[in-house]
Amino acid sequence: MYIKSKNDKDTIVVSIPLTTQTEKTRIKRRSILNQYGLPVATRSENITQDCYVEWQIGYDAVVSETEKLAKTTLKNYRYEGANGKEKALYELSEYVYYFLKWDIINKKELLELKSKLLNIRDDNLFDSESMLSIKRSHFIEKELNDTKFLFSKVEYPLLIHKFDPYEIITEIIIKEKQYAIGVQPMLYLCFPVTELRTAISLIGRPAEKKEEAEFVLNKSNYGILIKLLHLFGMLSINHRKDIVSIIDVCIANV
Amino acid sequence: MYIKSKNDKDTIVVSIPLTTQTEKTRIKRRSILNQYGLPVATRSENITQDCYVEWQIGYDAVVSETEKLAKTTLKNYRYEGANGKEKALYELSEYVYYFLKWDIINKKELLELKSKLLNIRDDNLFDSESMLSIKRSHFIEKELNDTKFLFSKVEYPLLIHKFDPYEIITEIIIKEKQYAIGVQPMLYLCFPVTELRTAISLIGRPAEKKEEAEFVLNKSNYGILIKLLHLFGMLSINHRKDIVSIIDVCIANV
Repeated sequence: MYIKSKNDKDTIVVSIPLTTQTEKTRIKRRSILNQYGLPVATRSENITQDCYVEWQIGYDAVVSETEKLAKTTLKNYRYEGANGKEKALYELSEYVYYFLKWDIINKKELLELKSKLLNIRDDNLFDSESMLSIKRSHFIEKELNDTKFLFSKVEYPLLIHKFDPYEIITEIIIKEKQYAIGVQPMLYLCFPVTELRTAISLIGRPAEKKEEAEFVLNKSNYGILIKLLHLFGMLSINHRKDIVSIIDVCIANV
Repeated sequence: MYIKSKNDKDTIVVSIPLTTQTEKTRIKRRSILNQYGLPVATRSENITQDCYVEWQIGYDAVVSETEKLAKTTLKNYRYEGANGKEKALYELSEYVYYFLKWDIINKKELLELKSKLLNIRDDNLFDSESMLSIKRSHFIEKELNDTKFLFSKVEYPLLIHKFDPYEIITEIIIKEKQYAIGVQPMLYLCFPVTELRTAISLIGRPAEKKEEAEFVLNKSNYGILIKLLHLFGMLSINHRKDIVSIIDVCIANV
């Protein structure tokens, strides 16, 4: 998501589209946490209190992907990704860079986080943690509607971290990698639409054509960013390597 | 997939692309059934005995989707889909139509299947069958890497039906609907690449540029089609309604 404005030493305003269900942000609804959120047709349905933003927040733009690279304000702040690709700071890492530059985040905080991440045992990273493995039960024979089946269940772990005292949460879902052996933890930042800033309150009305809302990051909630770095850094060896590189790049460039 | 050729009263040859991982067919590999198949990069990797075709076979083309409609040889054989959309016979229903016309499938077989489907209790249809529901375990608190989480597991049912004596199977996976409350059973027809016909054997070599292979349907294996109709018809009320309409349209038009 693009940065709409940033005030020197103060605030980042991120633009959140309300009417496009892009792969990065979606408006969803659920009544209780223990439930799968459903996408909301925001142009035709009223937005309600139980709507939330699901944002698959990222932390990098691969330099060779020019369209994505164009979205970051820091295209020359780069590091070598754990996958060997050259990456620029983007989204999460971009916001962290500015808050560090503005002395809202201090170096010490980031260095402590770095050492915390480096102290996590490899087998406690989420893609290796046995408690978080995808389990397939053994097949058992079942007859359903006069037809023989082998029946099994596939079990995916789901972790939720709550950012107290906000109603902001992170969902981490463990899925199979699509093109390789192994698992792939996916991280989503979710927050109620009531956290969004709009000219006219969103509740009780549909979104207007191409309407965007604002998500404001400032010294009252920057802690979310540090925790997101922490959460990303515990997903896998590659994620941790990336986050450590991001911390190094940020500190070296302020 | 398009019909490459059909002989009057005999054989349908379906073209299966080997190098495009379209959403409809993919070449995958797994060593044992109790495993998630992984897509194979068929242009760079050798195809091996443990490779298989995963085909999300369909049974209709919505008439308003002109690109898809162009793929069926029966665009004027239509029925009103359970979702209210006008549909033409395509893929599975297209093959069934020809085998019925050629007297390989007989009307009685289809009428028996229709009555079998209509006799399935609504709550034994797969989207309502309690044994096949998606289960989310209650959240429990877990501390991982100095961070508090709520931990849960999401359990998806998986059913496999084997077509004896062939090594052809159907996988049915129950997933959440993406845009509505409820579940959505997805059906995949899977068969070893050794079931495919090619000029030069596929095993031990990569696929050539834009190479296609042939899947042959004839009187030795047409039973798969009847069973696929049966399996589709037990997925949900809408699927059953569609399959019954397809049987009616086929019988009325031969």
